[in-house]
Amino acid sequence: MKKLSKDLSAYLAGFLDGDGSVYVKLTKNSSYKYLFQVSAYIAFFQSDKQENFLKKLRDSAGVGYLRKRKDGIVEWIIGDEQSQLDLAKTLLPFSKLKKKQLRLLSEIIYQKREISSASKFIDLCRLIDKFKQLNYSKKRTITASLVEKVLIDKKLLTP
Amino acid sequence: MKKLSKDLSAYLAGFLDGDGSVYVKLTKNSSYKYLFQVSAYIAFFQSDKQENFLKKLRDSAGVGYLRKRKDGIVEWIIGDEQSQLDLAKTLLPFSKLKKKQLRLLSEIIYQKREISSASKFIDLCRLIDKFKQLNYSKKRTITASLVEKVLIDKKLLTP
Repeated sequence: MKKLSKDLSAYLAGFLDGDGSVYVKLTKNSSYKYLFQVSAYIAFFQSDKQENFLKKLRDSAGVGYLRKRKDGIVEWIIGDEQSQLDLAKTLLPFSKLKKKQLRLLSEIIYQKREISSASKFIDLCRLIDKFKQLNYSKKRTITASLVEKVLIDKKLLTP
Repeated sequence: MKKLSKDLSAYLAGFLDGDGSVYVKLTKNSSYKYLFQVSAYIAFFQSDKQENFLKKLRDSAGVGYLRKRKDGIVEWIIGDEQSQLDLAKTLLPFSKLKKKQLRLLSEIIYQKREISSASKFIDLCRLIDKFKQLNYSKKRTITASLVEKVLIDKKLLTP
């Protein structure tokens, strides 16, 4: 990620608090060792009329990509984990609403790099569960306890 | 308004760009000399779960008030014109998406203070019309030309 000025960092922290999202989700994916994929995102949203504005922000930061949704919203998505760590570190001193999310996301990424066993993977999933409360998410259906059941069932984990 | 730090000003500019609104509207109100009221607003929105956060921002700035909507949204509304001028001036150097709106709002407030005739009032309404394009507003039904017709009809303006 490019180095951001203090002004731009504070601006982006405000923009993220107003209209952005920080989350980590679990999805089933049997090509992964522990059968579930951990995906982290930092995303900024705007009406597609403001696509150029989001492009400029993207270019200033030098990370992420733009995605046009069918409902007239454009997303600037930072999906790369190192970029997420860099951005989280930059925005943390200025964020007011999403400090906890930025810290938790960073913790999850660091912990993910150190996974050495199925039980450590379950610990990671428990951290991811915490996003549910932070983001008031009701859609989250894949939880640590579900992952645990599947891994036991597949004999990847002993009960 | 209280003096805001540079960091907080940049943060608020980002927050306003992400999830805020700057607008001026005309409403019919026969208690006004020219039969229409000009109301300017700067507003910040959040889920009512974040009411305390908006309260803190309000207290940091020392302007505006909170309004709870029935749809679960809380608004921090700056309705006082001097506070709007102060806030617009503070956020302008940092705003990226709403620079034009902040400038236009300020221009309208200054011009409103100098209204000396019905025709000057129509000039003001034309400035307000410009918000329609800036905010992609489709709801705006009271335009300068409607005001003009009403004032001519009421003999407050000669065609």
